[in-house]
Amino acid sequence: MSVLDIAPVKYRDGQLILLDQTKLPGEERYIQIETKEQLWEAIRSLRVRGAPAIGVAAAYGVYAVTRQIEMDDFDAFAAEFHRVKQYIASARPTAVNLFWALDRMERKLLSLRDTAPETARAALLAEAERIRQEDEDACRAMGEHGLALLKPGMGILTHCNAGTIATAKYGTCLAPIHLGQERGYNFKVFADETRPLLQGARLTAWELSKAGVDVTLICDNMASVVMKNGWIDAVVVGCDRMAANGDGANKIGTAGVAILAKEYGIPFYMYAPTSTIDLATRTGGDIQIELRDGEEIYKMWYRREMAPGGVKTYNPAFDVTDAKYITAIVTEKGVARPPYEENLKKIFEV
Amino acid sequence: MSVLDIAPVKYRDGQLILLDQTKLPGEERYIQIETKEQLWEAIRSLRVRGAPAIGVAAAYGVYAVTRQIEMDDFDAFAAEFHRVKQYIASARPTAVNLFWALDRMERKLLSLRDTAPETARAALLAEAERIRQEDEDACRAMGEHGLALLKPGMGILTHCNAGTIATAKYGTCLAPIHLGQERGYNFKVFADETRPLLQGARLTAWELSKAGVDVTLICDNMASVVMKNGWIDAVVVGCDRMAANGDGANKIGTAGVAILAKEYGIPFYMYAPTSTIDLATRTGGDIQIELRDGEEIYKMWYRREMAPGGVKTYNPAFDVTDAKYITAIVTEKGVARPPYEENLKKIFEV
Repeated sequence: MSVLDIAPVKYRDGQLILLDQTKLPGEERYIQIETKEQLWEAIRSLRVRGAPAIGVAAAYGVYAVTRQIEMDDFDAFAAEFHRVKQYIASARPTAVNLFWALDRMERKLLSLRDTAPETARAALLAEAERIRQEDEDACRAMGEHGLALLKPGMGILTHCNAGTIATAKYGTCLAPIHLGQERGYNFKVFADETRPLLQGARLTAWELSKAGVDVTLICDNMASVVMKNGWIDAVVVGCDRMAANGDGANKIGTAGVAILAKEYGIPFYMYAPTSTIDLATRTGGDIQIELRDGEEIYKMWYRREMAPGGVKTYNPAFDVTDAKYITAIVTEKGVARPPYEENLKKIFEV
Repeated sequence: MSVLDIAPVKYRDGQLILLDQTKLPGEERYIQIETKEQLWEAIRSLRVRGAPAIGVAAAYGVYAVTRQIEMDDFDAFAAEFHRVKQYIASARPTAVNLFWALDRMERKLLSLRDTAPETARAALLAEAERIRQEDEDACRAMGEHGLALLKPGMGILTHCNAGTIATAKYGTCLAPIHLGQERGYNFKVFADETRPLLQGARLTAWELSKAGVDVTLICDNMASVVMKNGWIDAVVVGCDRMAANGDGANKIGTAGVAILAKEYGIPFYMYAPTSTIDLATRTGGDIQIELRDGEEIYKMWYRREMAPGGVKTYNPAFDVTDAKYITAIVTEKGVARPPYEENLKKIFEV
């Protein structure tokens, strides 16, 4: 079985099944979601993570956990659906895809007021399935666009995990690597471990190993050396939110990698599905960055505390890569080159 | 008691005492060294670490563990001393200060052939004490030279631990911070955690907290963000070995920080005692970099393995910062500015 067959979110035979990503890489465990509390906890605890995968989980989830509720009184059902939606949305207050998917499901529901309950339920499930399929299609398209920027045998550095398990399928910036693998490109991938949550070590190294890709794990601070060694021909990273000028927020550490790539003359590609591009946000300076608990740095994974008790920490979850460091932005609708102010808008017109 | 009173290597009342740095920051434990095997293990396992501190430990150590050997037959003693020296030197095959200190002790011994055993032993101990005192003096001088480059209230980023516990006293790049602390400079220090061995989290955060310095712990990949936030006015780092052109090898990750500092227009100061400057090494390309076990990346500190079994790793212990990224080199004899090819030579003539 290919790693691409491992769906992080699956709805099958009336069951919502999530790959518990907190157990990777040691254990490939699946959990069944039956209540809204389970769904909330799974999103909150990053059992399902990656903006697109969270959106898909929320879409299926809001359908699944409201499935047992009577629908004879439409307004009562819609009110309960709304409460469930608000509750699920509170699991990760900065996850745009989460709200987007839930809103879309609610809009769909509200369009079904005059539909028979059975038909309405089927239409809701179909909407969740559409959200999943659209994401898979977008990822595959990004993979094709991105692959056209790469050559067989290249060395590629990536940061964090914007892979198949973070999306419906293929991933964003790992999509070209999966497609390349199928086509014999023999990429040599270097995965930053991605402190503090180690998504590169736990997830990307796992996902790419499982796909048979030649992957080497490094600490974040080794990116400069592998570039200097001449081992890296391109950098590919995901994007959590992009401003109209091309500044892109992504996992903490991305911006530093971009500066190193520029210094070494290595192309830096940011993969941003159009759903993450917000033309109403002028620059990266307008993007609010989530600050997380310092325990993630000095305690969370360790056998013992790795810093003196009470030490001050600074633990931003994301950073903003300035547009000037980004060689090209890969979207599902095509590749944008600078000047981004102009060319990102054009992408939306495609 | 000030942290500056905590000597990583102490010889007192006939006892060699080492601060066991592998137990920091949780526990301040001291170990007594009585045999050459204990000394070898302590150096090998990084219980004592930092090039100058290792040198001091080796000097006292070779004296201490040969102290019980009869000295009536000088040649027999010298032969045994040599065997002990070679054995200790094998603990860390790339530690230049280790060999240097041991060679210096052996040269001293060989100069004492015609001296009475008691006097010879006293002279050997005095030589070890001189090695310690010279290092303390050099560190203090680096601190004074370095402090002249800084202003009160500055934000300072450092990487790894080139602090008081890595030397006889004061440290190299942390010396100006300790001196500044005594003089009310109120620096705001940011310490990179320094993967994979976490010397920044375990040692620098501990040492500076204990000294009362305002220190904030960050992951290595957050260096770019704190610079972008405008919080960093200077970067100070140590140096393990410097070539004649000013290229300097230091703990892995240093080179990346230097590139970021250049990009943000922040001065980058490398602290290199003249003992680390090797004018016979032309450039950094001639410096061999130690590759270490990948377990340090995915297993060593963790409650469970943090990468899939069998994943490839690349784990260089050091990297080379190209001279072009170094604003100034601070030595105990003064500060060198570019062009380093010329100005490092001049430093040696001071």
